Amino acid sequence: MSQRSEIHRQNLEKIFNPKSIAVVGTNNVKGTVPYDILFNILKTEFSGVVFPVSPGERSICSVKAYKYVIDIPDPVDLAIIVFPSQVCHMALEQCGQKGIKGVVIISAGFKEVGEKGLEREKQLLAIAAKYDISLIGPNCLGIINTDPLINLNASFARKMPEEGNIGFLSQSGALCTAVLDYARAKHIGFSKFISFGNKADISEIDLMYYLMEDEKTRVILLYLEEVTDGRALMKAARDVTRTSGKPVLLLKSGRTDAGASAAASHTGSLAGNDEIYDAAFRQAGIIRCDNIEEMFNIAIAFAYQAAPRSNKVAIITNAGGPGVLTTDAAIHDGLQLAKFSEETMREFRKSLPSNANIRNPVDVVGDARADRYNVALTGAFREPEVDGVFVILTPQSMTDIETIAREVVKVSKEYSKPVYASFMGEADVAPGVDILLRNKIPHYILPESMCRSFSRVFRFYRDLDTELHQQRVFSNVDHDSVQGILNEAIASNHLYLPEEEAARILELYGFPVVPEELATTPGHAATIAERIGFPVVMKVDSDNIVHKSDVGGVVLNVNSSREAEIAFGRIMHNIREAKNDAVVKGIQVSKMITSGEEVILGIKRDPSFGPVIMFGLGGLYVEVFRDVSFRIAPIDEIIAESMIREIKSHKILEGIRGKPERDTGCIKECLIRLSQLALDCPQIRELDINPLIVLEKGSGCYVADARLMLQPDNSKE
Amino acid sequence: MSQRSEIHRQNLEKIFNPKSIAVVGTNNVKGTVPYDILFNILKTEFSGVVFPVSPGERSICSVKAYKYVIDIPDPVDLAIIVFPSQVCHMALEQCGQKGIKGVVIISAGFKEVGEKGLEREKQLLAIAAKYDISLIGPNCLGIINTDPLINLNASFARKMPEEGNIGFLSQSGALCTAVLDYARAKHIGFSKFISFGNKADISEIDLMYYLMEDEKTRVILLYLEEVTDGRALMKAARDVTRTSGKPVLLLKSGRTDAGASAAASHTGSLAGNDEIYDAAFRQAGIIRCDNIEEMFNIAIAFAYQAAPRSNKVAIITNAGGPGVLTTDAAIHDGLQLAKFSEETMREFRKSLPSNANIRNPVDVVGDARADRYNVALTGAFREPEVDGVFVILTPQSMTDIETIAREVVKVSKEYSKPVYASFMGEADVAPGVDILLRNKIPHYILPESMCRSFSRVFRFYRDLDTELHQQRVFSNVDHDSVQGILNEAIASNHLYLPEEEAARILELYGFPVVPEELATTPGHAATIAERIGFPVVMKVDSDNIVHKSDVGGVVLNVNSSREAEIAFGRIMHNIREAKNDAVVKGIQVSKMITSGEEVILGIKRDPSFGPVIMFGLGGLYVEVFRDVSFRIAPIDEIIAESMIREIKSHKILEGIRGKPERDTGCIKECLIRLSQLALDCPQIRELDINPLIVLEKGSGCYVADARLMLQPDNSKE
Repeated sequence: MSQRSEIHRQNLEKIFNPKSIAVVGTNNVKGTVPYDILFNILKTEFSGVVFPVSPGERSICSVKAYKYVIDIPDPVDLAIIVFPSQVCHMALEQCGQKGIKGVVIISAGFKEVGEKGLEREKQLLAIAAKYDISLIGPNCLGIINTDPLINLNASFARKMPEEGNIGFLSQSGALCTAVLDYARAKHIGFSKFISFGNKADISEIDLMYYLMEDEKTRVILLYLEEVTDGRALMKAARDVTRTSGKPVLLLKSGRTDAGASAAASHTGSLAGNDEIYDAAFRQAGIIRCDNIEEMFNIAIAFAYQAAPRSNKVAIITNAGGPGVLTTDAAIHDGLQLAKFSEETMREFRKSLPSNANIRNPVDVVGDARADRYNVALTGAFREPEVDGVFVILTPQSMTDIETIAREVVKVSKEYSKPVYASFMGEADVAPGVDILLRNKIPHYILPESMCRSFSRVFRFYRDLDTELHQQRVFSNVDHDSVQGILNEAIASNHLYLPEEEAARILELYGFPVVPEELATTPGHAATIAERIGFPVVMKVDSDNIVHKSDVGGVVLNVNSSREAEIAFGRIMHNIREAKNDAVVKGIQVSKMITSGEEVILGIKRDPSFGPVIMFGLGGLYVEVFRDVSFRIAPIDEIIAESMIREIKSHKILEGIRGKPERDTGCIKECLIRLSQLALDCPQIRELDINPLIVLEKGSGCYVADARLMLQPDNSKE
Repeated sequence: MSQRSEIHRQNLEKIFNPKSIAVVGTNNVKGTVPYDILFNILKTEFSGVVFPVSPGERSICSVKAYKYVIDIPDPVDLAIIVFPSQVCHMALEQCGQKGIKGVVIISAGFKEVGEKGLEREKQLLAIAAKYDISLIGPNCLGIINTDPLINLNASFARKMPEEGNIGFLSQSGALCTAVLDYARAKHIGFSKFISFGNKADISEIDLMYYLMEDEKTRVILLYLEEVTDGRALMKAARDVTRTSGKPVLLLKSGRTDAGASAAASHTGSLAGNDEIYDAAFRQAGIIRCDNIEEMFNIAIAFAYQAAPRSNKVAIITNAGGPGVLTTDAAIHDGLQLAKFSEETMREFRKSLPSNANIRNPVDVVGDARADRYNVALTGAFREPEVDGVFVILTPQSMTDIETIAREVVKVSKEYSKPVYASFMGEADVAPGVDILLRNKIPHYILPESMCRSFSRVFRFYRDLDTELHQQRVFSNVDHDSVQGILNEAIASNHLYLPEEEAARILELYGFPVVPEELATTPGHAATIAERIGFPVVMKVDSDNIVHKSDVGGVVLNVNSSREAEIAFGRIMHNIREAKNDAVVKGIQVSKMITSGEEVILGIKRDPSFGPVIMFGLGGLYVEVFRDVSFRIAPIDEIIAESMIREIKSHKILEGIRGKPERDTGCIKECLIRLSQLALDCPQIRELDINPLIVLEKGSGCYVADARLMLQPDNSKE
């Protein structure tokens, strides 16, 4: 942890639990941000003391105002600065002098308005560093802590949200206002609500670590517009989920960038930004959401209910149609309908009407009242195979909506299994929905959203259980030689390395390259060929000959020592005939690879996530179907395995239509070596192994062609 | 139109616009269906007269009751039967005697409860046919007509919906209650609301035609659980959209059936039911929705706003983040952000604050009030390139939500371009949303739903404009011979035809099969080979030889007349050596097809949609990626073209990686011929052409292998 991060860790505690606050730059103009911030702090009955700071006013909202921060007689834990951007630095300087360690700058007019604003932002950062201040913002909505012992709404949000266990972090302030409004209508409570704006100093990373340790927070929600440090974000998310078991839900705008790059097949253009984001987030255990509604649908499932032990659910409904829709959605999302025991069905047969469906999904029929729901719920909860209960209700004329809602609350409290509900409709079901939500039963207008949310929660906990594996590091790599080659190439400005050099580098990093050796006599050629194993390919090696085949300089499919000797002679003869002045170094004898499957491996360097590893099947699969997988380096065996299994054409490697199973173990090793190379050599901007030829299981694979692009400046890495 | 359909057409008019109604089987027990139906008719102030029919009561809801329908002194247009299922037939018989032509049977206990219920349903149907009665139900919620001149709520829905121009048809009664409740909260109005239950007599098809002609209906919504007659449904949807321009939106449960069948490559198992449904609905111009919410999101867009002339939109927002989210979503859904003219931007620069974004998406900034929205809206509407306006609002502290909503209503009324809104949040924005919805401005909580709905509307009208094409019918087909072969095969119970016979049938239907001819002498072989064109393949033809290659009975790559003569001799020699007793008919000389791309064509017969045509690329593309397209026969050139272009591997046919462009014109012809064959010969259950080898553009294609399965009973077709 950097020194600055450590300072933030200490200061954030004070920022969210201050005993005293200065609102610097407030004024008496109602309906403006400087006024609203102070008024909100007073209105929500903040448990500490607040000091207005305003150069021109005696008091604001009936509270005595001070001209400058340094005039405040008492110590101050947190300053909220609402001055115009041009003077914020002066206010911050005074906060430093006053010894204030936590500052939130609400004011806009910084990085987001261009060069001048960026300068101002840098100035703020220098002052913050000088005084060990931790700074949230600028250009943000403010912060909220719902803890009743604190009661802090230091924001210009219209209303304080309910108390709850969801921590919300947002780069956009405006989105916060929509989120708060959306959440209030659904009784969704928050622990902390933090708008971090331009994240000049404190970033989402610091705040995630803060919420990781925050006892009041159980779920972390994050809205991001730009990922500044992708690797730090991944690490923070991984730390949070692994250490605390708290899920991180992310809404990231900018999805459509991906659409831009389309056809070409090399790693660079294949990796649309958004695909890399998706891969990185998944790898870090982050749950990426498509929109605000989905984010809260999943968030309340995490926040309100226990982790499901399996994906087996029971569906209880008072209507057949919606029962079918829910079953469809559940199966679609990878859930299973639990099978009821004979005992449960006997109970249902006894206590439910004859036209009820006593199998899963249980249909308690349109005229069902709370008593029938009770029977079905109790049966479902008691059933050992059921690990989640879905309650569906449609508002039919006899449906006692509120009583049924209360019944769901009452019965579910007796069991520890998760229960979700979908009371379909809107107006008439509203009072019932209200009862459910107030009692922390996740409710969804659409059964489809209910199933999807359960599925995301289930998968999160399932994946959390998977073991972390020790990273495999290969020691049989010649790092120094590779560095030498790369640095020399960069020094002489050769940023695009030809096949031979790329192959050499890969060989030095332990990749299987096609065995080959230079023969100088016919007998030598035969000896080499025998060592390599037949069949071999023989090619003339001469700097003066570009198109070797054209001058008869290539013989394929050499199958014995005798043939090798003959081929040597024939090639030499051909060269003499065709190009007598050529200087011939010898004849290259190399293993002939006949029947392998071609795959593509690559490195691409992403500006925020660093080295990205790519895998796909060769030929048209990549080009036509974009059937590729990405991961952020480093990757371990499990990740390499998942990269291979993730692509659809993976079946081809398993053996299909009489083709043999391929040596995927060898691909895995190559992927891990590639990851190691990418991390060891930041000079590599892009590397494509295209193709790697993969033989039958147990027979290995060979790099058949590769190309490599360097980047001149590696100081950033 | 069948006679029965014609009767329905006349009777439906009376069913929905009755002057008098009999509620048959009503009683005085409040909170039961028989009571609620009558009470609802009275409560909504039905404009006609209602007669309760109840064997045991003098009056119900203060209205004089009759013992039997036939006792009613006046003529009756519509009877609603709510008796227990066991006696409904007697009530229906009396309705017939009374001359009532329209009957709705609400009662459950028919087909849905099994064999006995189905018997009762058939009994009803016979009575209805006898008296020319049109029957809705049984097992339904009832019907609603919101026309203020009628005011009919003959259902047990809790409340009458608002008047509007959406017609809703539902197979599930319970879903109706959820839909009505959902719609009421959002001021979504209906023209007719019809629960048709078991559709024993009147089906969704009859009702679609009825709504097509109904002036009050602009959009048709349909919830289906089972498609009984897929082809009729397609025809009805096509008729409705083409004739009236009214969109048909469909929610069909049962999506997950598709997941079941997975791996194998022949047409039969590739066509999961849901894929065929998807293809059929799209082909018929039906808009399939994923859930109720999406259905109404799209429905209100159709119902409230004009058709967009293009996909170019302007986005107006008071917050950057949501602006980005909306732009993302718009691009994702195939929309374009219009480019503003210099004039518009000049106006924006003049009237909006300096920190506003005057380009699309227009950001009027967080403290915007109605005046700024007015400027942005007016500018966007006036801009010629803009064909749709999206208004985003987040509830910031100064946001005057209701005034802005009114401004949107006011300004948009002056222009004919569609406007959609997303006021993000829930509680605070609610009054604004209410203003929008009451004024028929489609509103969406999520900008993503807004973009998606606009996109669906845009695509509907765009596709509506495409010309209908004359179906091409090939006359050079030998239908009689094919029928002969098929009928003979069925008669002798050969339901699986071998390659040769399948190829023969295809040839008779004008498919290009590989040219071949039987040669009896070396000279004859040479003549045939010359006619066919070199290279040719020569194969022995003998019933006694199964594995021709094993006995030296095949010679490939014959390149000249001389070689053909030699090959003839060699094969004859080989056969004599290996199998002297074989009766040799001759030597088959056939064209050798060398470098084509393999594609797969197929017929599959679906129980509700009839013959389905399949297309995909050969090899692993079908097997691994399920990269196939389906259409319901008949298909024309445009459809055949779209089938080819739809698959991802289509690029391969265009020519990729130095490969030549393929003769897709030839594939198209084969697809249309296949469609013709499928329709002409209902005996064909399944047919696979695998592969069809497609040569370079202009060089045609050849059926290389085919297999055909017959079905014994073709009486159903």
